[in-house]
This record gives sequence, C-alpha cells and structure tokens, in this order.
Amino acid sequence: MGDFVCETLEVNPAGHLSVGGCDCLDLAREFGTPLYVMDEMAVRANCRAFRQAVETCYGAGGKVIYASKALCTKAILSIMHQEGIGVDVVSGGELATALAAGVPADTLMYHGNFKTLAEIRQGLAAGVGRFVVDNRLELDQLSGLCEETGRKADVLFRVKPGIDAHTHDYVLTGQIDSKFGVALENGEALDILRDAWDRPGIRVRGIHCHIGSQIFEVEPFVQTVRVMLGLMDEFRQATGKVLEELNLGGGFGIRYVDEHRPLPPARFMEACAAEIRRFCSERDFPMPFVAIEPGRAMVAAAGITLYTVGSVKTIPGIRTYVAVDGGMFENPRYALYGSPYDAVLAAAPLAERVRPVTIAGKCCESGDLIQEHLPMPGVRPGDIMAVMATGAYNYSMAGNYNRNPRPAMVLCREGRARVIVRRETYENLLERDEIPDDLAP
Amino acid sequence: MGDFVCETLEVNPAGHLSVGGCDCLDLAREFGTPLYVMDEMAVRANCRAFRQAVETCYGAGGKVIYASKALCTKAILSIMHQEGIGVDVVSGGELATALAAGVPADTLMYHGNFKTLAEIRQGLAAGVGRFVVDNRLELDQLSGLCEETGRKADVLFRVKPGIDAHTHDYVLTGQIDSKFGVALENGEALDILRDAWDRPGIRVRGIHCHIGSQIFEVEPFVQTVRVMLGLMDEFRQATGKVLEELNLGGGFGIRYVDEHRPLPPARFMEACAAEIRRFCSERDFPMPFVAIEPGRAMVAAAGITLYTVGSVKTIPGIRTYVAVDGGMFENPRYALYGSPYDAVLAAAPLAERVRPVTIAGKCCESGDLIQEHLPMPGVRPGDIMAVMATGAYNYSMAGNYNRNPRPAMVLCREGRARVIVRRETYENLLERDEIPDDLAP
Repeated sequence: MGDFVCETLEVNPAGHLSVGGCDCLDLAREFGTPLYVMDEMAVRANCRAFRQAVETCYGAGGKVIYASKALCTKAILSIMHQEGIGVDVVSGGELATALAAGVPADTLMYHGNFKTLAEIRQGLAAGVGRFVVDNRLELDQLSGLCEETGRKADVLFRVKPGIDAHTHDYVLTGQIDSKFGVALENGEALDILRDAWDRPGIRVRGIHCHIGSQIFEVEPFVQTVRVMLGLMDEFRQATGKVLEELNLGGGFGIRYVDEHRPLPPARFMEACAAEIRRFCSERDFPMPFVAIEPGRAMVAAAGITLYTVGSVKTIPGIRTYVAVDGGMFENPRYALYGSPYDAVLAAAPLAERVRPVTIAGKCCESGDLIQEHLPMPGVRPGDIMAVMATGAYNYSMAGNYNRNPRPAMVLCREGRARVIVRRETYENLLERDEIPDDLAP
Repeated sequence: MGDFVCETLEVNPAGHLSVGGCDCLDLAREFGTPLYVMDEMAVRANCRAFRQAVETCYGAGGKVIYASKALCTKAILSIMHQEGIGVDVVSGGELATALAAGVPADTLMYHGNFKTLAEIRQGLAAGVGRFVVDNRLELDQLSGLCEETGRKADVLFRVKPGIDAHTHDYVLTGQIDSKFGVALENGEALDILRDAWDRPGIRVRGIHCHIGSQIFEVEPFVQTVRVMLGLMDEFRQATGKVLEELNLGGGFGIRYVDEHRPLPPARFMEACAAEIRRFCSERDFPMPFVAIEPGRAMVAAAGITLYTVGSVKTIPGIRTYVAVDGGMFENPRYALYGSPYDAVLAAAPLAERVRPVTIAGKCCESGDLIQEHLPMPGVRPGDIMAVMATGAYNYSMAGNYNRNPRPAMVLCREGRARVIVRRETYENLLERDEIPDDLAP
C-alpha cells in the first residue's frame, strides 16, 4: 500500500499533496475551498479493474454497471460510458443526468423502491435497458403503462436474498427486514416472477439483489449467488422457464482508513463465478448473464476534499477542535453514520501526527463534525487540509444546510484540473425562492 | 390541545386535513408531492407570542431574533420582518437571503463558529447589526478588516456558559466540550472581551450564548442567565466597563409528538426576566438589552409535509413499510437524530390508528426512513400522507441525495396557497454540471 489511504495520491517535489499531477495548494488557491477533487485516472483504473475482472470471469456474459448514486455528475457518467461501464440510476434525476451525459438509455438499469408514476413514464419513454422492479405495485403500474403506450419493458426483480452483509459481519435471516424488494422464503419472489412472465408489455429477464455496503469478505457474495441461483432454478422447475440474468448488486468495500483492507475486485468476481459455474453445471442450468453494480468502489478513493482551516481551539484536557470551511452540508457521513475518514495537511502530507484533533464544520450544530479523535500534525489557521476518500456519497448527499453553497468539483489528470461541477452561488440558492406581492420588500 | 400535534391544523367539512384554510388533498393535486406546506398565520402567531412575551418582560429593552437556520427563504424572512422580528444568520447564504427579502441589515445578527474571510467582508459591507464573534481568530480578522476599511463593527461574543441543555436533561459542566465560543471558567471569555474593547474598529456590545435545542424546562435558562450576568459583572469589576447586551439564544422546545409539552414563550421570558431584574438590582447593575433567538419554535409546528404513498409492504411478524415519495433527501432528521414525527392521512386525519407502520422514503438506502413504529390507520397506495411539524430543519437540511429534486413549498392563508419555493427541476440539478470537451457526448 502507498503512503495514503487513497493510493493514487502523491507527494510532489515541493513536498505538497498532489492529485492527478495537480498540487493541492494550487487547486485550493485557484478554485477556492471547500473543493471536491477527483482523480480521473483513479476512476478509470477502478473501472478497468472491475471490467477486467468481469471479462476474465464471464467474457461477454457479464457487465459492470456503475451505481451512480455514489457520485452522479455528467462528467463522471461520461467517463463510465467511455470505459464501457453501464450506469444504474435510482431516480428521474439520475436518469436525466445519465441521458444528458450521453449514456445510451439501453445501458441503463433503473432501480428504486419507489419509482413514482412520472418516473416510470420517464424511464419507459427514454427506453432504459432494464427496470429493476421492486414490488407488485410497480409491476402493475409499469405493465399498465406498457399496455397503454405499446412499449415493452425489460425487467429484473429486486429480491431479498435473506443475506444482510454490512462491514465485517453478515447475517443470514429467514425473512429480511428491508424496505427493498420481494421476499424469497414466503414465495413472494416466485409469485411475482410468474405473474410478470405472461404480461404483454413485460419481458422478464432475471433477478437482482444487493446485500449491503462496505463488504470486505467474499463469502456473503458466494452465499448470495447460491440463494439467487436457487431461486432461478426453482422458477425453472415450477414453470419450465429460464431467467437469463443475475444482477448481484454492489457493496464492495473501500479503504477509508488504514485499517480497512479491501479485496481486489477480481477476488469477488472469481469466487462468484466459480460458484455460478459449479451450480449451473450441477443443475444443468444455462450460465446466466451476470451484472455487478459497484458505486462507492469506483469513485470513493478517487476523491478528496480540500478545506481551509479556521480557528483551532484546544480545550485543555478535553480535545482540540479544528474548524474547516465545509461540514455536514457537503459531507454528512460522520453525522449520519459516524463514518471514519483520514485527513492530511496539503502542505506537509507526511508530517508526523502529533495529537488527536476533532475536525468540525462551519454549520451551527454541535454534531457538525467531519471526524473525531484523528491524529494529525500541528494544524494552524489558514492551512489547507485534505480529507481523503470522499469521492462517494459526499457531493451526492450534499445540501445547503445553513444556506451554505455546495463546493465546486474538479477533475484532475496529468497536471490539469477541469471544473466538472461549478461552485454554487448565493444566486443559485435564491433562484427558486418566490415572494408573494404582499410580502415583497 | 387540539386534535393534532400542530395545533393550527383542522379538519374541514369534507373531512380532510386543512392548513390555513386549504384542503391538503387539493394542495397535493395542485402542487404535487412531496410538498412542504407552511401555515402563514401559525408563523405570525408564533412571532406575536414571542414578541409579546419579550415586550411584556422588557418593554423596548428586549428583542426577538429569528434563527433563520430553521427555515430560510425570502418569504419567511419577510414575514419575520413584517412582524417586527430581527433575523439571525449564520452564513453568507443566509445573509444574502435576508438582504434579498428586504430585511434591513442593521437588524441582523451574524453568528457562526467559522465565518470565512469572505463572509466577514460581506457582513461588514452589508452593515449587519451585530457580529456574534466566536473566537479570537475571527476577532483578529474582523478588526483587521475594520481598520482596513474604516468601518465599525458592533460585536457580541459567543460564550460557553457551561450549561448544556438538550431535551429533558441539562448538565452543568465545568468546561463545556463544544466547537462554539469562548470558555468562561478559564478566563478566555474575559480575556477576549478586554482585548476587543480597545480595538479601534470594534464596539463591544455584549455577550451571547446558546445552551441547546428542544428544551422543555425553564430552569436551565435561569441558570444560564445567572452565569452570563456573572460574567458581565465580573467584566465590570475587572475593567469598570459595562456590557449592554445579553443574547440568550434559542432552544425553546416544540411539540413534535403528543408526549411533548412545550411551555408557552411567556413562561421562559418571565422566569429569565425575573432573574435578570433580581441580579441587576442586587448588584446595582444596569438592566441589559435582552435578545432571544427562537428558530424551531417559530416555524416547526407551522409546517407539514404532504407525500403520496407508494407500495405498502407487510413483512409478516416484522413490520409494515409504507413508502412515500420523499425521504431523507428532504427530511433527514430521523436518519440523523432518530427524531420523532407524527403523521396522518389527509383524507381521514382522525381515522383510528390500527397498526404501527414504518414510513420509508424513496432513497436507495435502508436508513432512509421518516419514522418507525408509528400507529396509523390502514394506508393504501395513492393515499396522501401528512407528516406534521416539519417546518423547521426539513427544507433547510434538504439536499439532492439520489438526485431527487427538492419539493416545492407553499404558504397557506385563508384558503389561498402561494408558492414560496418552486419545486426543483431536473434542469436545476444539472445546471452546475460541466462536461469537458473530451468527455462530451
């Protein structure tokens, strides 16, 4: 492993932190802070690692789909498409972004536990490659619209495989407690497959599942493969019909902090592929087309966030607060989940870590912290701090709490930085505000 | 108390939920869902209750300042100004909103633990009434800019009174662990006051504190008054100089659910005023000008959110998930804090609550819930559901997770609904996205 949790980060000859050949102090000066910084080649390298792993295991019989909820901008989706990666969208907004980025609709997977009627219409009109149908209401609405419009929808069904894998543990539950999908063990999944098969506008392609996030083990995926293939086999036995596609979702762990030890994508793919081949040969089942949907694993470690440090407050015997010019409005993950992050100073990224600090944001809320008790070198007002592995679920979860504008995002490659999301302005914040006449100033 | 936790809600002759004379089913039909709905007269009534309480206690020697972080739109701030309420802002974005709403700059309080240099400049240029200075770095920057520009800044200092009051408990700590303000007990507060007094651009007006949120008891405020006046007295003894203003912040509890029993504003004011008068007369200290800063208490119970129900999934023996077309992107408070909310069906708001349900959002995340285990009547797809007391920290904390557009907000009064925040469009979501030439479709 390299010097940093984000392995593509470097120290340049000036001794500064460098992303894609760009000096982080220069980036902060040129584009201001807070600033999201994405390393283009790191994103592309992740794409290639996943794609290669899938090609090695499945040849043309598999596909990598990017879960765009992790980071959804036109430029990022365009990179995915250039790299031969499909895109999964979970809302009309993600769908609109993918289309605006030039991603062909037929490479899109349309997920979501609640697609509104307008969203289903929009997906049908665009001609998305697959609807991943979550429940019977959605099936009814989709098939109704298909009949009405004469369109056809290619459909997977979201299944709860009864495996719940988060971080280091996973559990096998008889009946998983989830808002997503249809249950396996009470026949719900089988029922909806049967029901859907003969609907005129619906082409049933296969089944989908997603077992969790930040998974560092292969075994839960292998178990999942077994359960999902079991359902496909059961459906064949019951109906004589064959489901052709198996979408195993995402959840591949990434390295936020030093202790995290993510496996290379190939390890997951190989184990799953071996299980699929074994199962298919044993049961004489045709090899399904296999899709996987990494999101976080494609972009998280390719991103950092640059901040300017404000006041540094040492409360003797308690802790030192280091205020930065961002916070939960642009990275709510510590506030929401207590997520771990590492950080370094851009001017001295390898400086010795001499004391733990708490990185606090600028929002008027005690819980507005980026990280607590993180060993850091001496930090002073005006320093540029880089919080690492912020490429996923930072910009995508950002808002305007305290009416703070969202940061810009730059894409760095070979020493060039290009803005891919413009910094929000106060005008942007105000543009949807209306003021009735009797309230006008 | 009325039928609902939001006391101004009514059932109209059609049997439907009604806000400010507007039928909620009509609102959902006309403006779509999810929809934030604000009751204008409820906001004005809260303004008047606080203003009256302050006037009764302090005459012209007190002021109500609205903590706009709770809900900051031009129309809402304009109402505050019409009602004779000042506005507290915590960022350049809130400041810009207040100015755009026609709120005179000299009625503004400028808070925040980290005002950037650009924000301090902006506040000075606008001529905000008070800078509430958080720390010495800010003091240095502010006084430097005052010298540079020849402007004067009227300043309060944020003090940690060593009282931390949240919900039902409060604690007195020797040394409060907070990112906000200067400490009392180690002389930090006294030092910064002394230091600031003689700086040419700075007029030291007084001190500020804020002890917590959702406080249902009077006693922590009375304690706080004692501590803050003690500091003012100590400063007088040490320097012979008198601080004229005491800003006690906010934190007044509201009723999210039936069990909550907020006190009327007058109860807090009377208890604090009595303590202030007692203290001032005992120590022969001149009565300070007293400000309070309610935020949540002004708007939370004046707001509801209307949703359309999607699928209803009963997992036998576990729970029933009711999906709505919003979620953590427009109300992250359950995901962040496990905050309690009550909900009713707009078509039958008093229907018997027959079973507990979990209200889930449409985001692709298991934690995307609005409330768990809430007893509700039978709910069916297509129903319009109203979640109550969402007027504070819903729109203000909203973002675009999963690229969901933020809802519109309407202001209802006497049967008329006016849009005060337009619904976000997919175009809005895309407008800051840039795509470099080599990534263009």
